[in-house]
Amino acid sequence: MRYAFAKRVHHLQSSAVRDLLKITDKGGVISFAGGLPDDDLFPVEAVEKAFSKTFRSGNKAFQYGVTEGFAPLRDVLVDRMTQKGIPAKTDDVMLTTGSQQAIDLFARVMFNPGDIILTENPTYLAAVQVFQSYEVKIIPVETDEHGMVPEDLDYKIKKHMPKCVYVVPTFSNPAGKVWSLDRRLHLLEATKKKKVIIFEDDPYGDIKFNEEETYIPIAALDDGEHVLYTSTFSKTVVPALRTGWIKGPHQIIRMMAQAKQAADLHSNSLSHHALYHLCCDFDLDEHIQNLRSAYHKRMRIMQYLLDQAQLPGLSYIEPKGGMFFWVRLPEVIDSTRILAEAVEKGAAYVPGAPFYVTDPKYNTIRLNFTHSTPDKLEKGMRILVDVFKNAIKYEEQRV
Amino acid sequence: MRYAFAKRVHHLQSSAVRDLLKITDKGGVISFAGGLPDDDLFPVEAVEKAFSKTFRSGNKAFQYGVTEGFAPLRDVLVDRMTQKGIPAKTDDVMLTTGSQQAIDLFARVMFNPGDIILTENPTYLAAVQVFQSYEVKIIPVETDEHGMVPEDLDYKIKKHMPKCVYVVPTFSNPAGKVWSLDRRLHLLEATKKKKVIIFEDDPYGDIKFNEEETYIPIAALDDGEHVLYTSTFSKTVVPALRTGWIKGPHQIIRMMAQAKQAADLHSNSLSHHALYHLCCDFDLDEHIQNLRSAYHKRMRIMQYLLDQAQLPGLSYIEPKGGMFFWVRLPEVIDSTRILAEAVEKGAAYVPGAPFYVTDPKYNTIRLNFTHSTPDKLEKGMRILVDVFKNAIKYEEQRV
Repeated sequence: MRYAFAKRVHHLQSSAVRDLLKITDKGGVISFAGGLPDDDLFPVEAVEKAFSKTFRSGNKAFQYGVTEGFAPLRDVLVDRMTQKGIPAKTDDVMLTTGSQQAIDLFARVMFNPGDIILTENPTYLAAVQVFQSYEVKIIPVETDEHGMVPEDLDYKIKKHMPKCVYVVPTFSNPAGKVWSLDRRLHLLEATKKKKVIIFEDDPYGDIKFNEEETYIPIAALDDGEHVLYTSTFSKTVVPALRTGWIKGPHQIIRMMAQAKQAADLHSNSLSHHALYHLCCDFDLDEHIQNLRSAYHKRMRIMQYLLDQAQLPGLSYIEPKGGMFFWVRLPEVIDSTRILAEAVEKGAAYVPGAPFYVTDPKYNTIRLNFTHSTPDKLEKGMRILVDVFKNAIKYEEQRV
Repeated sequence: MRYAFAKRVHHLQSSAVRDLLKITDKGGVISFAGGLPDDDLFPVEAVEKAFSKTFRSGNKAFQYGVTEGFAPLRDVLVDRMTQKGIPAKTDDVMLTTGSQQAIDLFARVMFNPGDIILTENPTYLAAVQVFQSYEVKIIPVETDEHGMVPEDLDYKIKKHMPKCVYVVPTFSNPAGKVWSLDRRLHLLEATKKKKVIIFEDDPYGDIKFNEEETYIPIAALDDGEHVLYTSTFSKTVVPALRTGWIKGPHQIIRMMAQAKQAADLHSNSLSHHALYHLCCDFDLDEHIQNLRSAYHKRMRIMQYLLDQAQLPGLSYIEPKGGMFFWVRLPEVIDSTRILAEAVEKGAAYVPGAPFYVTDPKYNTIRLNFTHSTPDKLEKGMRILVDVFKNAIKYEEQRV
């Protein structure tokens, strides 16, 4: 039988990254492709204790719950956000199935087909997928290493009258960079004047490498009316609990809760109870410190290996946190074309092109440094550098 | 600031039932309102053991997983569905955040605004909410105690050319009834001819009171091309794990997986691991037997109390399974109007009117009998019967 799907499925596309993960996960391949934290650093014992406590806390924890999620966990998140300077109230926070669902529910209640959103370029692929599925028109803003370029941002706000600007200002995916405070302030001022909402996606903010540095979330600079802020436990605790949250203007959070009621009634609330106990009984901040230092070390190893390769034309911005190196290879290389060879030789990355909304740079790649142990980092990078060198040689011979 | 929401939010409405739950859950009130299983019957020990086993099974259980959900659990579900005569393959099964998400993702990939779906009347409220949010036109089919009336079904398929027929054929919510085999077969034949999809929602099928009876799922009568079948662990294990599943034609499941990738990447996979171990190590079928007999007993108590009330004009269909009594009160009673009085006196129900797509019957109510212990059933029903009697007296005096 042939099925008549909705028109919107034409705008749905399977993520190139996730499809790739299916291949590279088949073992034998050292993968720098996924945005995965390291399994070995998961606080499994603390998670187990938190679940044990939940099991002893009475059967109500197993019953249906409210759509917004377990209130005591939302209280904890309010405290943690307040520490970061983000003003929050429990009623303005909703728990979601990962921060991915926060993006989806936001898009669901905000966008009509043809509405416009501004993004960085490149930007987070799975957010683009969501916006496209709602037939939102995505306009990229010129972006340098400090954030969106003010002139282009101002021009595009004026020209396109977007409903929203979507940003990952702290250790972005894929580009691994940090916006300067000036650029954050500028974005807030520029959007406020025109009543444009900012959607601040901050899954990586906690994974920073320099203790001295402070990167103020844009939501902390706002009066609470213009910025939606989302984050997740996926990078700091474990991904499998699929627990993210969103904080924003009450009216929008309320509307998103209605959408969530239709979408899934509520997220896994047993995990909410467990995460609540974990936040109370476990030193999550100390754990985050440990993650920072472990991931910082790995970033340094990858950086060393990139530098050592001495590939003329290779460049990157040193990540100040997060999980990714964003690398420009010599211009002759098309990273998509040589991926198969890399995988065959035992190492994988994600080509950078799919992360661009427009004007893809085919010589870019995203390398994850958090999932692999130091020795795998070394082995995998050796394979990749070889593949890149071969590709350059091949292209030179062609000329 | 005023926010410009998407047009589709006008079709989003908070569930009257869930809003009511917020009030009645505040303690002191004996509530027959929610569709809740009994907390005291949750297999907490088995769930705890299953999680313990997961914690000892290696850190990979805590990592990101595939969108379709943990494959070994899907294998288990294939076995369980096969036992019910439903042909299934692991690739055609996807795990969802409750069966609610299965309904939502199905609607997301199938319906354009203005598309038509046929439903029973009354029908499951939260499904109606989903369809409305996608601007689907819902046409009710005349329904009697055996299922959809064939003549009206045939007529409406011909007249409206629907894309889908949504049904809860076994112990329906709210009406608590079972479709006859004839009606199931008729629905399948009538839709097959016109290439209309059937969406069979079966959350309650396992909670049947007469061991001798067999209610064949419509999906078991199909060749695998025309029926989507969804069910859940919420009624048989615990709701808080929010784990449901959907089985259907491969093309549709694949498209729903793409939609799910955008919606939330994947559901809580730690729970998938735990449910897998639970299904392997725990006698889930014996547990379901115990639930059946406990809930059967409660149904009988409620039935006894309804009969004893001797309210002229009160009628109901005896539930053969599931969680609900669907009661018609004397016609003079508007069940919505007297709800506040009932809650004040200490007992709650759900008015039946919101469950109707068209032509609401204001004298209907839905009573859940699974959530309350026998003594609460008795106390709560005594309060309700009093309230109903007062209402009748009041109406008689008005005349």
